[in-house]
Amino acid sequence: MRPNTAQPVSTPRPVQKAIDELSRLPGIGPKSASRLAFFLLRAKQEQVEDLANALLEMRANIRFCQNCFHITTEDRDPCTICIDPARDAQILCVVEDPLDVIALEKTRLHKGKYHVLHGSISPVDGIGPEDLRIRELMGRIQREPIREVIVATNPNLSGQATAMYLHQQLQNTGVRVTRLAQGLPVGGDLEYADETTLARALEGRREMS
Amino acid sequence: MRPNTAQPVSTPRPVQKAIDELSRLPGIGPKSASRLAFFLLRAKQEQVEDLANALLEMRANIRFCQNCFHITTEDRDPCTICIDPARDAQILCVVEDPLDVIALEKTRLHKGKYHVLHGSISPVDGIGPEDLRIRELMGRIQREPIREVIVATNPNLSGQATAMYLHQQLQNTGVRVTRLAQGLPVGGDLEYADETTLARALEGRREMS
Repeated sequence: MRPNTAQPVSTPRPVQKAIDELSRLPGIGPKSASRLAFFLLRAKQEQVEDLANALLEMRANIRFCQNCFHITTEDRDPCTICIDPARDAQILCVVEDPLDVIALEKTRLHKGKYHVLHGSISPVDGIGPEDLRIRELMGRIQREPIREVIVATNPNLSGQATAMYLHQQLQNTGVRVTRLAQGLPVGGDLEYADETTLARALEGRREMS
Repeated sequence: MRPNTAQPVSTPRPVQKAIDELSRLPGIGPKSASRLAFFLLRAKQEQVEDLANALLEMRANIRFCQNCFHITTEDRDPCTICIDPARDAQILCVVEDPLDVIALEKTRLHKGKYHVLHGSISPVDGIGPEDLRIRELMGRIQREPIREVIVATNPNLSGQATAMYLHQQLQNTGVRVTRLAQGLPVGGDLEYADETTLARALEGRREMS
């Protein structure tokens, strides 16, 4: 075959821009991003608009609760969990992520409230205690009638480090500190656990020593 | 633990809507969609807007070329490849997907033009020849000075089926029909092949018998 004198044609700019933006999402590499972009090129105009609008609307309407930092809507801050009088204000479940609240709510076993840290201590990633909502947690301990803190961080390295740190911080507050039972598969992520496993872990929680 | 009398809290509607829309994308299940939604909740407002706008802009500005059905912009239809006089109008490379055109262009070895079928024959998925741009391909064979058709469908079951079908259809047109050499890893997808493998396959293409 003779060498090609024609100019090779690259991806049109709007497509490349969409691929670039999709590549910034976690777990989506350039190849997956290309696939998604070309899928959306062939999808109905309506589907692309629905997706784009859903993302914009979510971003515009969702806030983090000023008290517990779980997700909530603009018109409900503090969130429905924080202001629910049927919730036991003495038991506070501390999680890394809003998804963990949703997973725990599905077990229907936690009758207390929540506090979302928004991450876990991970020195390799440069995330220290000051980057999490730990200061706000300590404020709640002083302000609210909390008697037990259930540490429900992930059963992995940074989740365990965060649990140990919280245990230290709470040691002299007179609050009982418990940790979800090791019924959870070690090394995994809390939100991927099935509801039964999560329910077992809640029921079997034990004193930190 | 006593049973929970408090109402369990579910995902806010705007978040659920975003998760639902993300779940409609190929290769993204409900768990991945949740992850992406919560990532975007924490990302900068700007990033979410950039993503949404990139998708909308891509969808609004990108067309499929009326001649070869590769992607192009509204103001360039027929596309730049179709109207490029430096391209050899006698050699037509038939692919399943616009991504395949982009992959082949990177080898810089194909000096002819393209025709994008937009899929492959797959009876299990209910996709027959009439669902692909095969009628338009036959029209081009009659209209354009094409002497060779390089069948560059994927080296998998439906790609092979499509190649066999095209070979049959083109048998009495006097056009030489070639197929990319089996240097491609069988069972895989053309667009995932590295450039060298693709270049070998182009160079080693052989007569269909």
